[in-house]
Amino acid sequence: MRLLQVDTVAEAKAKLDEQFQGTSWRSLEIPLHQCVGRYVAQDIYSRENLPGFPRSVVDGYAVRSLETVGVGESSPLFLDIVGEVEMGKAWTRPLEESTTVYVPTGGMVPPGADGVVMIEHTEKLDEKTLAVHRPVAVNQGIMGASEDLEEGALVFAKGHRFRSVDIGILAALGWIMVPVFDQPMVSIISTGDEILSIIEKPTVGKVRDVNSFALSALVQETGCKVGGVYLIGDDKEKLEETLKEALSRSDVVLISGGSSQGTKDYTAQVIDALGKPGVITHGLALKPGKPTILGVLEDTQCACCNRKTLVAGLPGHPMAAMGVYHLLIAPFLKETYFQNQEQTLRIKGLLGENLAAGEGRETVVTVGLEDTPAGYRVVPIHGKSGMVSQLLRGVGYLVIPEGQEGLKEGTSVEVTLFA
Amino acid sequence: MRLLQVDTVAEAKAKLDEQFQGTSWRSLEIPLHQCVGRYVAQDIYSRENLPGFPRSVVDGYAVRSLETVGVGESSPLFLDIVGEVEMGKAWTRPLEESTTVYVPTGGMVPPGADGVVMIEHTEKLDEKTLAVHRPVAVNQGIMGASEDLEEGALVFAKGHRFRSVDIGILAALGWIMVPVFDQPMVSIISTGDEILSIIEKPTVGKVRDVNSFALSALVQETGCKVGGVYLIGDDKEKLEETLKEALSRSDVVLISGGSSQGTKDYTAQVIDALGKPGVITHGLALKPGKPTILGVLEDTQCACCNRKTLVAGLPGHPMAAMGVYHLLIAPFLKETYFQNQEQTLRIKGLLGENLAAGEGRETVVTVGLEDTPAGYRVVPIHGKSGMVSQLLRGVGYLVIPEGQEGLKEGTSVEVTLFA
Repeated sequence: MRLLQVDTVAEAKAKLDEQFQGTSWRSLEIPLHQCVGRYVAQDIYSRENLPGFPRSVVDGYAVRSLETVGVGESSPLFLDIVGEVEMGKAWTRPLEESTTVYVPTGGMVPPGADGVVMIEHTEKLDEKTLAVHRPVAVNQGIMGASEDLEEGALVFAKGHRFRSVDIGILAALGWIMVPVFDQPMVSIISTGDEILSIIEKPTVGKVRDVNSFALSALVQETGCKVGGVYLIGDDKEKLEETLKEALSRSDVVLISGGSSQGTKDYTAQVIDALGKPGVITHGLALKPGKPTILGVLEDTQCACCNRKTLVAGLPGHPMAAMGVYHLLIAPFLKETYFQNQEQTLRIKGLLGENLAAGEGRETVVTVGLEDTPAGYRVVPIHGKSGMVSQLLRGVGYLVIPEGQEGLKEGTSVEVTLFA
Repeated sequence: MRLLQVDTVAEAKAKLDEQFQGTSWRSLEIPLHQCVGRYVAQDIYSRENLPGFPRSVVDGYAVRSLETVGVGESSPLFLDIVGEVEMGKAWTRPLEESTTVYVPTGGMVPPGADGVVMIEHTEKLDEKTLAVHRPVAVNQGIMGASEDLEEGALVFAKGHRFRSVDIGILAALGWIMVPVFDQPMVSIISTGDEILSIIEKPTVGKVRDVNSFALSALVQETGCKVGGVYLIGDDKEKLEETLKEALSRSDVVLISGGSSQGTKDYTAQVIDALGKPGVITHGLALKPGKPTILGVLEDTQCACCNRKTLVAGLPGHPMAAMGVYHLLIAPFLKETYFQNQEQTLRIKGLLGENLAAGEGRETVVTVGLEDTPAGYRVVPIHGKSGMVSQLLRGVGYLVIPEGQEGLKEGTSVEVTLFA
């Protein structure tokens, strides 16, 4: 057995980055309404001014603002009403001195007008005469042409992940089809003689397959497709055969279980047997998460494309597998396939109790949050390795960096929420 | 025209709650892997103990903890190795005095053993003899039967919205098909003579249809289906005809635009003409968001089912429409159809500048966040009503309650993130 080369998460990430440096990943164009959660494949610039013409932001009357200087309730300005702007229609006639036109909210402001007085601050004396009771500042009541977004302005940087609110922005700019990165295919192999399909009732000694469901949900949350899900016992030949099949359709393969030092763990051997460079990390300085293997396989089918596949052996314990996924696999997927480095916004709070770290290892701690007048109180969820109920009681996790002995009660910490 | 009955958001919400009180909404069972984002339709209890048997949480040797009292490096305990527990297999033979069996992580702990010593703290002297170098506390190294989740424990309360991490928990408990609430159908009618389909290039005076895309994304984000999207001009007959069609397939209809007091706004009349009780709120004490209409229509087709449909006229300005959606429509949908009252976790921070409120009205302010050593600094995004670029530069919003004149720089505020 090869000696364990335990890497920190950062070291492992750096090795992956080196291996997958320059990966050129395909993109495609999809309809706007399907874009939430997808990653944009090019910088998106505004192709025009927004709005394309000066719009009124109130229901009111267009004025030449200079004429309104000094106007008040007792000294109104009288203007001739010469018309009414219709919604959706252009008004090209310049506004002459001492005249006004009615403009509804969103209507075009006539040339020559540089302000719109709200209808509430006017009085219509007759069909042709308006009294204005308040002065209007330059540009008051108007959204100028291009004031919202200028033609050529960067709207979304390549790699941005679209939120629901972004869809409205894309619509405003007329992006009907949107270039996004394709979704890489991730397959999941859940291993272990003790693992049963969830359709079976466990007998003593057996447990249900949690990880293929948990990892599938996470993989989709990241924005990838699940290519295949396999459940196999601890059997080297079966693993090799299954991994081969998974590789034939996958950009990334996650193997759950079978990566610790136990007698039946041969995941590393199987990876090494299937190609070069093989295993690059065997063991993470992460608690929980130590029994993690990272392997990289070059595609020998194709000399030109330099395509590589990540095969990651994750711990069998659901909490540990999820921790490794969150800290290492998800950032790898986002950066390599989606050119996305956006940080998930973290909740800041004060630690509710002293917290020990895992002997020199980076430590992931599941936490709950209590809302207090002084801000969030961050409460560690205690539980033994392998408990799923921690997920239930927790809302997220914090990370104690390697080399820190622990964190004292009252320390300011940052919590990443579970998705 | 009827006088405006301006309600606060809370008053409007209370009216809706009264109207839709006792709504009985259908549920269905769907496969586990489709459950992320869905709302559970019944309380979910654990149907069994988890784990179902005592499991080792380490690779090690099962011991009777009393025998290890006082054991140390210089005074080891010697035990006879009588076997090895296999993964996935039951071990029913009780552990006798002065004996031990090897148990891999996740393996069953034999009856009579009440601790597992990690392999690192033992030395195998020969095939039959183990030296134990550390004492083991009761239950150390073991996850007891039911220690993770007890049979009958409440796991998810009715109305909970499933996160990705919940999928693993459901798998562990063997929920193959999961009861969730059906997705109500929400249709969107975007109105306005100035509104063009996004496939058209706007001429002067026209703008693209932002709201049907923005609202569609939000409706799906909430967990509903989009039933139909309609784009029509300012035309009363056309609105009535379109609303009738939308009603025939929808549980909720959102009408964007056409709800202010302008000359062409007749949304309220059309709603009132189509059924009882008709318009219940005409105007919200919300900035932006005042031109909001809430109408309720009873289904006269069916005497027994007491089915009602919400028809909501939202402001035409995208920012205002989204504010009303977030503060009023989304909570209504979640409570009425999904029995969900879970609060989205808010980010806490200190306001970066003084902020004025909208003259006695509840005020929604789009904000950005700056990460500082002292916590998040909350920075209002200024912009004129109707700007979409505010969405681009903001990450969320804060709400100034009605009756407050504003908020001072440095005030602690809570930010709801845009989805």
